[in-house]
Amino acid sequence: MRIDIISVLPELMESPFQTSILRRAMDKGLAEVHFHHLRDWATNKHRQIDDEPYGGGAGMVMMVEPLDKCISELKSQREYDEVIYLTPDGITLNQKIANTLSIKNNLIFLCGHYKGIDQRVRDLHITKEISIGDYVLTGGELAACVLADSVIRLLPGVLNDEQSALTDSFQDDLLSPPIYTRPEVYKGLEVPKILLSGNFGKIEEWRHDEAIRITKEKRPDLLGN
Amino acid sequence: MRIDIISVLPELMESPFQTSILRRAMDKGLAEVHFHHLRDWATNKHRQIDDEPYGGGAGMVMMVEPLDKCISELKSQREYDEVIYLTPDGITLNQKIANTLSIKNNLIFLCGHYKGIDQRVRDLHITKEISIGDYVLTGGELAACVLADSVIRLLPGVLNDEQSALTDSFQDDLLSPPIYTRPEVYKGLEVPKILLSGNFGKIEEWRHDEAIRITKEKRPDLLGN
Repeated sequence: MRIDIISVLPELMESPFQTSILRRAMDKGLAEVHFHHLRDWATNKHRQIDDEPYGGGAGMVMMVEPLDKCISELKSQREYDEVIYLTPDGITLNQKIANTLSIKNNLIFLCGHYKGIDQRVRDLHITKEISIGDYVLTGGELAACVLADSVIRLLPGVLNDEQSALTDSFQDDLLSPPIYTRPEVYKGLEVPKILLSGNFGKIEEWRHDEAIRITKEKRPDLLGN
Repeated sequence: MRIDIISVLPELMESPFQTSILRRAMDKGLAEVHFHHLRDWATNKHRQIDDEPYGGGAGMVMMVEPLDKCISELKSQREYDEVIYLTPDGITLNQKIANTLSIKNNLIFLCGHYKGIDQRVRDLHITKEISIGDYVLTGGELAACVLADSVIRLLPGVLNDEQSALTDSFQDDLLSPPIYTRPEVYKGLEVPKILLSGNFGKIEEWRHDEAIRITKEKRPDLLGN
């Protein structure tokens, strides 16, 4: 999988991609991530990439021309499955979307910044708009990291223990049951006896029941559909 | 505001806090963020902080003792408004939660990792569990960055143009209207005439109508409540 990330602040994304699972995925050649500094596609001598909104109002707008040039150049080099704009206005990311994107080959992520992008970039290039949640961030850079992480960790061979991803929260629409590790007793708090029983059939049953109980209690919406 | 972030991978969070708005908030003394490497609170000679789950199954569990020691030490130094565990099992972050947290003084963010934390850490210390969305990430580190960004940008004085935060998506439960900047015509695509009219009353009306139209089309759930 190849991901091209277009941003006015690529340096914000350095450490997440140099660490842990994302780093390992790239070291193993399972994912390539390329950063593109939007300012490299600026067309005037001030390397301007944003300007004031027509009609007035607070905040700056990312200009159409540098974005069009950058995306067009990438598209001329290879075929992209999706050109994704990270924006609070998009569809809300969930595990199904991450699963679907994880089988694509080439993706562009465009990080919104300031008040957003000129509408004409959407009209010309964007195939999917994704929000990571109903809250506002300084820019789309953290959203791009989140989306990349949620997708790249699903690529075969990225996680050490493949089963681990399959038993994650959301893969079965249930939250996880309580988990415990050593010691058996800590400050008077004991591990539930069932987990020490060695009866794996009963343990699986208990975990399933607990997952349903916790999901009912905290996120009944996940069971409702 | 002071935020203490406990993690097994604090290095993953370096660049987001060294860049842009978060960096500026810290430089101005409006927010302090302290990272705590969980391994510094490990109690055995291997500096172990995770172990296998009781009852079997894939993935490792973050042990209760190092986490209890770390959180207890922080709590002995000052009073915390919330001890927040970042986990897909938590309540889903939204703008209201970000607004509420932005008026607190001291927060602890605990980044989950592996299969999660021993249940007894929740029982002993956690006052709030927050998920940034219905998808699974490699760890809670990106979630902590997202939560910190959503909260810190709301602190008075952090954004240059305070009005800008008030007109963001979600502050009024509406998505944003389309925005445009120069040039007026690009590849045959024109800026809507109304935005060039100079009639600010009409422009505000158009923007409100467009915001409602777009919200109805993309996120009718935001209008339904």
